[in-house]
Amino acid sequence: MQQVQHQMMGYDRAITMFSPDGRLLQAEYAKKPVKQGSTAIGIVCKDGVVLVADKRILDPLIIPESVEKIFMIDDHIIATAAGILSDARVLIERAQIKAQQHQVTFDTPVDVDEVVKDVCNLKQICTQSGGLRPFGVSLLITGVDQQGPKLFETDPTGIFFQYKAAAIGEAETEVEEILKKEYRDTMSVEDGINLGIRALTKVLNGKFGPERVDVAYVKTTDKKFKHLTRKEVETIFNQLKKK
Amino acid sequence: MQQVQHQMMGYDRAITMFSPDGRLLQAEYAKKPVKQGSTAIGIVCKDGVVLVADKRILDPLIIPESVEKIFMIDDHIIATAAGILSDARVLIERAQIKAQQHQVTFDTPVDVDEVVKDVCNLKQICTQSGGLRPFGVSLLITGVDQQGPKLFETDPTGIFFQYKAAAIGEAETEVEEILKKEYRDTMSVEDGINLGIRALTKVLNGKFGPERVDVAYVKTTDKKFKHLTRKEVETIFNQLKKK
Amino acid sequence: MQQVQHQMMGYDRAITMFSPDGRLLQAEYAKKPVKQGSTAIGIVCKDGVVLVADKRILDPLIIPESVEKIFMIDDHIIATAAGILSDARVLIERAQIKAQQHQVTFDTPVDVDEVVKDVCNLKQICTQSGGLRPFGVSLLITGVDQQGPKLFETDPTGIFFQYKAAAIGEAETEVEEILKKEYRDTMSVEDGINLGIRALTKVLNGKFGPERVDVAYVKTTDKKFKHLTRKEVETIFNQLKKK
Amino acid sequence: MQQVQHQMMGYDRAITMFSPDGRLLQAEYAKKPVKQGSTAIGIVCKDGVVLVADKRILDPLIIPESVEKIFMIDDHIIATAAGILSDARVLIERAQIKAQQHQVTFDTPVDVDEVVKDVCNLKQICTQSGGLRPFGVSLLITGVDQQGPKLFETDPTGIFFQYKAAAIGEAETEVEEILKKEYRDTMSVEDGINLGIRALTKVLNGKFGPERVDVAYVKTTDKKFKHLTRKEVETIFNQLKKK
Amino acid sequence: MQQVQHQMMGYDRAITMFSPDGRLLQAEYAKKPVKQGSTAIGIVCKDGVVLVADKRILDPLIIPESVEKIFMIDDHIIATAAGILSDARVLIERAQIKAQQHQVTFDTPVDVDEVVKDVCNLKQICTQSGGLRPFGVSLLITGVDQQGPKLFETDPTGIFFQYKAAAIGEAETEVEEILKKEYRDTMSVEDGINLGIRALTKVLNGKFGPERVDVAYVKTTDKKFKHLTRKEVETIFNQLKKK
Amino acid sequence: MQQVQHQMMGYDRAITMFSPDGRLLQAEYAKKPVKQGSTAIGIVCKDGVVLVADKRILDPLIIPESVEKIFMIDDHIIATAAGILSDARVLIERAQIKAQQHQVTFDTPVDVDEVVKDVCNLKQICTQSGGLRPFGVSLLITGVDQQGPKLFETDPTGIFFQYKAAAIGEAETEVEEILKKEYRDTMSVEDGINLGIRALTKVLNGKFGPERVDVAYVKTTDKKFKHLTRKEVETIFNQLKKK
Amino acid sequence: MQQVQHQMMGYDRAITMFSPDGRLLQAEYAKKPVKQGSTAIGIVCKDGVVLVADKRILDPLIIPESVEKIFMIDDHIIATAAGILSDARVLIERAQIKAQQHQVTFDTPVDVDEVVKDVCNLKQICTQSGGLRPFGVSLLITGVDQQGPKLFETDPTGIFFQYKAAAIGEAETEVEEILKKEYRDTMSVEDGINLGIRALTKVLNGKFGPERVDVAYVKTTDKKFKHLTRKEVETIFNQLKKK
Repeated sequence: MQQVQHQMMGYDRAITMFSPDGRLLQAEYAKKPVKQGSTAIGIVCKDGVVLVADKRILDPLIIPESVEKIFMIDDHIIATAAGILSDARVLIERAQIKAQQHQVTFDTPVDVDEVVKDVCNLKQICTQSGGLRPFGVSLLITGVDQQGPKLFETDPTGIFFQYKAAAIGEAETEVEEILKKEYRDTMSVEDGINLGIRALTKVLNGKFGPERVDVAYVKTTDKKFKHLTRKEVETIFNQLKKK
Repeated sequence: MQQVQHQMMGYDRAITMFSPDGRLLQAEYAKKPVKQGSTAIGIVCKDGVVLVADKRILDPLIIPESVEKIFMIDDHIIATAAGILSDARVLIERAQIKAQQHQVTFDTPVDVDEVVKDVCNLKQICTQSGGLRPFGVSLLITGVDQQGPKLFETDPTGIFFQYKAAAIGEAETEVEEILKKEYRDTMSVEDGINLGIRALTKVLNGKFGPERVDVAYVKTTDKKFKHLTRKEVETIFNQLKKK
Repeated sequence: MQQVQHQMMGYDRAITMFSPDGRLLQAEYAKKPVKQGSTAIGIVCKDGVVLVADKRILDPLIIPESVEKIFMIDDHIIATAAGILSDARVLIERAQIKAQQHQVTFDTPVDVDEVVKDVCNLKQICTQSGGLRPFGVSLLITGVDQQGPKLFETDPTGIFFQYKAAAIGEAETEVEEILKKEYRDTMSVEDGINLGIRALTKVLNGKFGPERVDVAYVKTTDKKFKHLTRKEVETIFNQLKKK
Repeated sequence: MQQVQHQMMGYDRAITMFSPDGRLLQAEYAKKPVKQGSTAIGIVCKDGVVLVADKRILDPLIIPESVEKIFMIDDHIIATAAGILSDARVLIERAQIKAQQHQVTFDTPVDVDEVVKDVCNLKQICTQSGGLRPFGVSLLITGVDQQGPKLFETDPTGIFFQYKAAAIGEAETEVEEILKKEYRDTMSVEDGINLGIRALTKVLNGKFGPERVDVAYVKTTDKKFKHLTRKEVETIFNQLKKK
Repeated sequence: MQQVQHQMMGYDRAITMFSPDGRLLQAEYAKKPVKQGSTAIGIVCKDGVVLVADKRILDPLIIPESVEKIFMIDDHIIATAAGILSDARVLIERAQIKAQQHQVTFDTPVDVDEVVKDVCNLKQICTQSGGLRPFGVSLLITGVDQQGPKLFETDPTGIFFQYKAAAIGEAETEVEEILKKEYRDTMSVEDGINLGIRALTKVLNGKFGPERVDVAYVKTTDKKFKHLTRKEVETIFNQLKKK
Repeated sequence: MQQVQHQMMGYDRAITMFSPDGRLLQAEYAKKPVKQGSTAIGIVCKDGVVLVADKRILDPLIIPESVEKIFMIDDHIIATAAGILSDARVLIERAQIKAQQHQVTFDTPVDVDEVVKDVCNLKQICTQSGGLRPFGVSLLITGVDQQGPKLFETDPTGIFFQYKAAAIGEAETEVEEILKKEYRDTMSVEDGINLGIRALTKVLNGKFGPERVDVAYVKTTDKKFKHLTRKEVETIFNQLKKK
Repeated sequence: MQQVQHQMMGYDRAITMFSPDGRLLQAEYAKKPVKQGSTAIGIVCKDGVVLVADKRILDPLIIPESVEKIFMIDDHIIATAAGILSDARVLIERAQIKAQQHQVTFDTPVDVDEVVKDVCNLKQICTQSGGLRPFGVSLLITGVDQQGPKLFETDPTGIFFQYKAAAIGEAETEVEEILKKEYRDTMSVEDGINLGIRALTKVLNGKFGPERVDVAYVKTTDKKFKHLTRKEVETIFNQLKKK
């Protein structure tokens, strides 16, 4: 009811405007494409971090391997997104440049936090300045830096939190239920990958298979990003079926 | 119904605005001229890539040879477009400059992916910044680089996917049906050209002939763009008729 | 009906806006002054190119010789316009500068195509950026360069095509009917001039005479722009009357 | 009727907008103050050019000599205006600077055409760019350059024509009727001045006298601007009365 | 009636817009505060120029001497204003800088005309460019330069005229009636001051006295600005009473 | 009535717009917060200047000493404000910089007038340029410079007057009544402080005490700003009670 | 009632606009998210300053230690926020840079006041300039500098006050009641922490525990920021329970 009144009054027609109850409606609308995006899961493990993402490819002419749902920001930091994919690309490319600049300037790898803050500052600006809309995308940014493994979720307004395990996209709520029940911080990276794939399989019912999943991890030992091959993914699916 | 309400409320009157359900309506409208553009087909073959495009020339005073539907971006990369042709030209010229800059800076030919990302970043900006409308054009960008033959489709919002075979323009849906049935990744460039011409002939019924088609390819062996001459095209049409 | 709805909703009140069916209405309105402009004809001949234009001078105090309907872009390139004449002047001056810059930089005359693309890029920008309206003018740009004689028609949105023969302005449709019937690519420049004057005489009925026509040509042999004198024009009119 | 509809729809509320029938309404409105301005006449003679302008001073406390209706652009070029006088001043000052720059750069006096084009380009910009209104003024620019005596009329949209004789302002139509009947290109400068004063006397009835007229000329022999003194003007009036 | 329609249609809501009858309504509104300002009079005498202004101080706590109604632009040029006083200050400061720049650059005092044109160009810009409103103030600028004594009146649109005697502000019409009757160009500066004070006394009835008037003059002999002291003003008032 | 019509028509919705009766409505609205601000008084004495201001602290957790109602602009200039306090701060900081620049550039203390003009020019700009609202604050600026003690009041439109004694804020009218009755220019600084405190005590009834007042003065002898301590203020209150 | 009228008239649709009663409605709306933010308390003690903040973490997958409610600005200055967290981050980062610049430029730690003024100037600009919305966040900024311990509260309009003890966020009113009763300026830092935790426990009822609180302090002795560990917090909670 109040929502309709706000719309009638035009409070949601410009990002640089508060509604009378102090809300930024355009920033709230920007969260909608996130809720319609394909699902992605991030998990912090005892020996590294894991991302498992649904590629949601329906067109058989698309080359599945080419669909990147997990992006490398630096050797030790990876990210995944839900929402408007071209918005995500802009943010990822900014993060990549930030990481390179840090490496060149200080000769040490950038901390995950610093990348997250930089991305979120850009997101915040787009909720405050005229002439730009907010970014319609949430990111999971994860990696291993000097302080160990870390996982962050950023929303379209530029707010971020550090999580043990988190999900974004259309099945966020169902997956988070599963994570709350099954997540343990004693999990290994292998356990984390299994948990992510099991969760996606469950919430997507029968519509999920090895060709539709993107899996990557960073281990604490070498702090190097690894992308699972199709074969490795298929092996995991086969093992899970046997159980 | 919802669409009409959005229009009444003005959510579709500015690109820098989300509708309450999180859609960018101006970006969606920009896809309409693509659906009304003339049809073009891209096919990845075992030994190269192929573009086949309908020129749709109705005025007999236009010089058919002058109507370019396939544009060279670099020796090894070509593109075709559906939608607002003057918008396409702006993007193609930007891609040409990007390719030249890469060649000059690194002394190696640019990868197809890099050209695609650059074009799509510009497209994305035009869906987020005020004072500019989105580009009303989709591109098929294809070529052969160090990793082999590649084909990308980019839409007006700056989203892109890598395809084995793809179609854009008014007959997109019908052509994609044909491609799904007949496409094999063991096809040679010659097979690909035949498939493209056959598909266009079918969806355009009797209104299609050698004077109306634009065909080009890049082979893996020499990575050099070749444009079929009118004579070569006529030979293919004659052979197809005989079958 | 749809048109009226679009107007009610304001889709035609800003150039940087698509209507829900993907049209740029301001760009379409900009074509109207072209349809109301005085008529001009371009013809590609075996030995050069020809422009014949109606000056449409009604005020006897205007000096007919001073009314330029045909503009020199470079020694070998000429143009004529239909629509808002002050808009045309801006584009012609830009083309002249482009041609001079090319000559100075590369020490060779600019190609006709390059001038056309440059003019059309400016036209395209004015259909995409806020704060500017589209140019309300179509140009026929013609000339002889290294590849031989060429004729282009550009519309207000920045789209262009290469023609054998073309007409713009209020009598575009009637003249194009005549051109389709009578045009032969074996015509000489003299034949072309005759055809252009005959066509204008026919569509303008009795209201047309030597004082109202502007004729210019570029021959392949010397690639130099020639403007017919009043006397030369009168001779042609006299010869035509005798037939 | 159509006009009213256009106003209801707001097509006349921004200069950077076409109406659905392809008109620039703000540019058309800008012609209104011209039609309400005081009358001015330009005449090309066999031995020079003449401007005769009505000062229309009604307040006896204004110093008649101080009211300039004829402005010097350069020694050999003069101009007069009808419409918004402060707009005219901006254009005249620009023309003066243009003429000085030419003189300094090329060490020759600027051609009249070049000054006219420069002024009209500024006028055109103000009909195409947002944030500026069109100039509400028409100018008669006249002078003698290397090609001889010349007279141009420029309108608010930046369109200009070369005339033998022309009038602007409230009595434009009546004066042009007189010019069409009485103008001869064999007239001397003295004949031209007489014709101009007679025409103004006729259209302004009894309300016109020596204190209200501004007369200036440039002769071909010395190409130097001369302003008639009050005494010279009175002599002419006396001679005219005797006839 | 027409006025109301214009307001309904919004023609008066932006300075960069003409109404359909070619008026700039915002510029016309800007003349209203001038008509409500306190009255000021300028008079050209045989031996100099005079300004007499009503300070209209009603609050007894204001220091009358501090209320400047007459401003020095240069030693030989003074001005007074009616309308928005803070707007006046901006223009006066600009004129002061203009005069100093001229003195420094050319080592001669600036002409009164040049100061007037400079101020009026700024006023004109504010009636043509978006983002600025017109100046709501009229100025009387007067002084003695190489050509002798001069008086100009500038209105909010940037139009100016040279006067023998002029008035601005709430009593403009009544004072001008008096000036038309009593002004003689044989008056001395002392006569001019007397005339100005008599005129203000008459139109302000009993509400006018020495504490409320600001008087200044520039004589031809020394071209130096003099401000009358309170005592000098009182002497004049006493002499006038005796008559 | 008229006010309501103006609001209906939107004349008060942009600072860069006059209403049809020549008012700047946004600038008038900006005077409202001044009328709601806490009261402050300035008094010019024979031996210096005085500011007495009500701090209006209602929250007992605020540190009374920290609430600055009187600001130092330079050693010899102080100011107080009524209206939007954060707006006041911006203007005070600008004045401080202006004073420092003058000291550094000319090696003499800045005059009070110069500071006032600089602040008021910024205020004026904010009533004329788009994209900024007017400052919602009035300032009393006072001090002692080469010409002696001075007191100015500036309003939101940038208009200022020099006063013997003045008040701003919610009790402006009542305090000015008291000042008109009791002010004498033979008062000493001590008398001035007493008058200011007595006036505030009266208009604020019982709600006023030493913890709520801010008192400062500049004497002609040393031209140095002095802030009364809490103890000094209490002594004055005690003395006043005894009377 | 008046509020609704203001909304109907659009006075709350742009930050650069006053309502007819002199209010900046957008700035007032920006205070709403502050009232909905989680609660934070600042307390000035005899030997330092204390911040106690509610983290309000509801999602068990968020890492509580990672949720920063108290931010370091410099070694000796800390801050906490209520409102839009991404807005807070922008202001905190600006304050950090300000503090570093001061340290580098003057080689002494920055005063707390200076940081507060700098942050509030940015906040003020966002209530006056177009194209930016106000910051939707209040900050408590506290620390120990040369003058001793200090605590400031800043609101979204850029107004700030110095407090002995203050609260922001959803429970502001209840906590301030407690502070008014129980605050003593003889409290030690330990007493201050106890008071803050007791107050939060009371207003949040049973929903508050060690995992949800963020506590930090700066002591006068070493002027170094200390963050309580989880263990230290738990000890305090246990001691409080025993009482």
